[in-house]
Amino acid sequence: MANSKYEYVKSFEQPDVLLPNTWIVVRIDGRGFHKLSANYGFIKPNDRRALDLMNAAAVAVMKDLPDLCIAYGVSDEYSFAFHPSCQLFERRSAKLVTTIVSTFTAYYTYLWGSYFPDTPLQAPGLPSFDGRAVMYPNSRIFRDYMSWRQVDCHINNLYNTTFWTMVQKGGMDNRDAEQELKGTVSADKNEILFKRFGINYNNEEEIYKKGSVIYRQYQLEDVKVKSDSGIQEETSPLQEATPSKTQQDKLRKLRNKAQVVVDHVDIIKDEFWERRPWILSGKPGKLPVESK
Amino acid sequence: MANSKYEYVKSFEQPDVLLPNTWIVVRIDGRGFHKLSANYGFIKPNDRRALDLMNAAAVAVMKDLPDLCIAYGVSDEYSFAFHPSCQLFERRSAKLVTTIVSTFTAYYTYLWGSYFPDTPLQAPGLPSFDGRAVMYPNSRIFRDYMSWRQVDCHINNLYNTTFWTMVQKGGMDNRDAEQELKGTVSADKNEILFKRFGINYNNEEEIYKKGSVIYRQYQLEDVKVKSDSGIQEETSPLQEATPSKTQQDKLRKLRNKAQVVVDHVDIIKDEFWERRPWILSGKPGKLPVESK
Amino acid sequence: MANSKYEYVKSFEQPDVLLPNTWIVVRIDGRGFHKLSANYGFIKPNDRRALDLMNAAAVAVMKDLPDLCIAYGVSDEYSFAFHPSCQLFERRSAKLVTTIVSTFTAYYTYLWGSYFPDTPLQAPGLPSFDGRAVMYPNSRIFRDYMSWRQVDCHINNLYNTTFWTMVQKGGMDNRDAEQELKGTVSADKNEILFKRFGINYNNEEEIYKKGSVIYRQYQLEDVKVKSDSGIQEETSPLQEATPSKTQQDKLRKLRNKAQVVVDHVDIIKDEFWERRPWILSGKPGKLPVESK
Amino acid sequence: MANSKYEYVKSFEQPDVLLPNTWIVVRIDGRGFHKLSANYGFIKPNDRRALDLMNAAAVAVMKDLPDLCIAYGVSDEYSFAFHPSCQLFERRSAKLVTTIVSTFTAYYTYLWGSYFPDTPLQAPGLPSFDGRAVMYPNSRIFRDYMSWRQVDCHINNLYNTTFWTMVQKGGMDNRDAEQELKGTVSADKNEILFKRFGINYNNEEEIYKKGSVIYRQYQLEDVKVKSDSGIQEETSPLQEATPSKTQQDKLRKLRNKAQVVVDHVDIIKDEFWERRPWILSGKPGKLPVESK
Repeated sequence: MANSKYEYVKSFEQPDVLLPNTWIVVRIDGRGFHKLSANYGFIKPNDRRALDLMNAAAVAVMKDLPDLCIAYGVSDEYSFAFHPSCQLFERRSAKLVTTIVSTFTAYYTYLWGSYFPDTPLQAPGLPSFDGRAVMYPNSRIFRDYMSWRQVDCHINNLYNTTFWTMVQKGGMDNRDAEQELKGTVSADKNEILFKRFGINYNNEEEIYKKGSVIYRQYQLEDVKVKSDSGIQEETSPLQEATPSKTQQDKLRKLRNKAQVVVDHVDIIKDEFWERRPWILSGKPGKLPVESK
Repeated sequence: MANSKYEYVKSFEQPDVLLPNTWIVVRIDGRGFHKLSANYGFIKPNDRRALDLMNAAAVAVMKDLPDLCIAYGVSDEYSFAFHPSCQLFERRSAKLVTTIVSTFTAYYTYLWGSYFPDTPLQAPGLPSFDGRAVMYPNSRIFRDYMSWRQVDCHINNLYNTTFWTMVQKGGMDNRDAEQELKGTVSADKNEILFKRFGINYNNEEEIYKKGSVIYRQYQLEDVKVKSDSGIQEETSPLQEATPSKTQQDKLRKLRNKAQVVVDHVDIIKDEFWERRPWILSGKPGKLPVESK
Repeated sequence: MANSKYEYVKSFEQPDVLLPNTWIVVRIDGRGFHKLSANYGFIKPNDRRALDLMNAAAVAVMKDLPDLCIAYGVSDEYSFAFHPSCQLFERRSAKLVTTIVSTFTAYYTYLWGSYFPDTPLQAPGLPSFDGRAVMYPNSRIFRDYMSWRQVDCHINNLYNTTFWTMVQKGGMDNRDAEQELKGTVSADKNEILFKRFGINYNNEEEIYKKGSVIYRQYQLEDVKVKSDSGIQEETSPLQEATPSKTQQDKLRKLRNKAQVVVDHVDIIKDEFWERRPWILSGKPGKLPVESK
Repeated sequence: MANSKYEYVKSFEQPDVLLPNTWIVVRIDGRGFHKLSANYGFIKPNDRRALDLMNAAAVAVMKDLPDLCIAYGVSDEYSFAFHPSCQLFERRSAKLVTTIVSTFTAYYTYLWGSYFPDTPLQAPGLPSFDGRAVMYPNSRIFRDYMSWRQVDCHINNLYNTTFWTMVQKGGMDNRDAEQELKGTVSADKNEILFKRFGINYNNEEEIYKKGSVIYRQYQLEDVKVKSDSGIQEETSPLQEATPSKTQQDKLRKLRNKAQVVVDHVDIIKDEFWERRPWILSGKPGKLPVESK
């Protein structure tokens, strides 16, 4: 064909297949959301509409890609996780990341009006997201990643809640509030909130304190008396038997039947993972009776 | 800080910096656009609204990222090119690709209603795009890449035009038309169009035959009598002097002043590149008098 | 300094750090050993001197790099494994691979005369080795890798033993022997050896049947009655506490004290690993009383 | 086959093919040569035997791999360059690097006795080398790399010559010499050598001042009056026609016929490259009449 004389340029594409049998986390972040949240008048320290919109877009991504096990979001970032057994797009990094980033962006833009009916999007200045894929070799380290993000959520939210209370209710100047908070620990911030403003941080909304975790809902397991940390033993594809194409399709259909839920709970402790063993095992659980 | 005990997970992020002094092409492709174009009733073989929407989104990307030199689009794909001297995001591959994919998707979604006022987007089933970055070591090979896409555009468009004319005007069954076209060369298709349907392929619209090329407009250069192919000699950053941060900012501002234009012209021959030397040189030209 | 104007070329070096917390296996292979073994008159199917030389060079590598946990060799190949906790050379792939390849080659060349006193090396035609690093995300998969090599050793050795017996003792032509063995299974080859030549394959030397495994010797553990496969639970560096520089030095010294032994035993079953838990744990055991 | 159940581990090998049409430089460095040169009594600042041994090993590598265009060595390091058109080992990075490192090490070890007849190698403590591959996108940048190494040679040799003269002839203590040289420029060092010791640095041996460059010898070209820097225009494989397997074999044979020479000349200026156009073009020249 006439085209062939230029086709050699295809040879410059380099493979980017991620290591088999590792967790893949795609984390996306809002680009320039500091400025964007000011432009569209996001409420400080937390804009419930903005968070609900993030969650709605993330739910759409989870439904679009049944291979995803779990997602965790806070502020303008979201982490999506593929199980080590995932074979989607032959585990090509750019393909996985761009598919998530693009689908997320499409829904975020499309759904904007439902959450911000009074402040329509205006170009230029549309929201957009960047992303990257990171591999984690086992469930223990993957859980440490998830814990990292939730601890980060806690630290930032306590800081922001205190800061904006000092400014908004205490009438302080931004710089003074920042100055006073420099070097404080959690206990100090809790005390400022409680003593000066009568606010018990524990009573703040869970979505702000814990962030949002999204997963497919199956029948919860009873928590075992003697915990084994919800961490399964290391396995090889040999023991696990890599699923065939047909099996993968079947798994995908099973996952499509499960309800995708948004939760605001602790994902650092074992309990969350022990009661939902399907997340770390990568195998669909039983559908709950009520969701049929 | 309390967070530090989990922060080790950051060490799993691996660098993905692209080789310095190479052309970077980010190509994005519509995901499942065969089905999507059917769902939203795209006209065959070419839907002008869909192409104009692609171009509008690509223009927005070009304006958002002044580091981009040129873009070329056909059908549901678009290629965006960064000059070898580009330092944007430290040339991190995932960052470059996801920023383009996300910005493109945001504008495509946002602008949809202007081009398809009668067929609003419906979820699920929103359009999305995947993408990847490829490096080309010199201008010669980069131009071969661009030629590859434009030759592809020609081949596909001639086929599609002939096929859909046979079906739509000739009343043929899809399978019969496909069967008849098997093994034909360009001349055969041109003849079918002309003899059976009185269509001279050369008179088809340029946007369909040539695709769309987007670049910043400066004063065109006269074509030199004795061509040196528009290909500059190889240079090293040593000769070129890698631009400082301040210079880069200055260049960005200069580029922002230039008009971003959409053209449907031959980019395979030298002329296009010789008249617009700023594209391969990566240095802004003079602003045209009329655009001031 | 005058040099600085060219120093920008250093920016073209790209990082090649391997993913943390994965097993690293560096496998090296003799280059053109088919021809080389003919040139230096290696005995078929197994030349004990050549294997002993391979083992001697591998022992030298193990002693030179105390970070290595275990090595396995067969024919002209050797696999060297670093534990997931290994931080040597910041886990840079090229550095790890070339250090092993070069050290191995140096000893192989240097020790040649001790094993082949009558056929000195002659240039050109010196032995050399290539190599590559591969990551395995957990101990289970790493053990499958080791099993893969040992099964390969078995399959090849049974074939070669049968083939060369048919040729050397049976007086067959190479091509006829090859032809007869085509499509045979293990049982067939065992029968040929036994029925035609009175050879019981089980009585062949262990080094030929099992290959060679090299590790540091500490006090063997009793095999537990109820096996847990010698596979430890997944851990994170958080639980494990990544060793400090000082601790790493201490570990290195401890490992240097252990004797490096060459064994010809089954490494597919659990027993080998259960009795030597220090290999998979990456923590030195107790020095055996007799080796002090 | 019985082996198949473990063969899945092969899927963990990741591709490492270098970008097409770029220069590949493999640089190798002696491991721990500071200590090693002390152990084997290398003469300071330059041990001619050690340099000649390095060169002999490098010549052997050049002969073993006809795909190599040129090599440059100084002290205990050597850089080997493959032309952008090189297809050896499908341009797999680890394969290229380890082959060079291993071949170099084998010859260095094998030839040691010819250059150090009185100080035989002793294990442990054998010389070894590490290495890495770096890509350079065009000839201009590749030449800057070569210039970088030769400038480095000059700077280090002037320093070392001055330092060791002060110590060996001037009777100075190491620390005092180091102290006095801190912050000096080239002119200062030249003056110390000349005024105090009557040494004209320009009269030092070329091998010490310029390092060693190795290439295949063809008929030298006359230097053109009007230089175009010896840098050819950028080409694409399209124009160049990637050589077929047969052509590659033919080229390899042609290269094998050329004499491999060791030179100690300036490789920073254009003249070296203009007179030997086959190095940058990658096409064998005419064999010199006298070498037939």
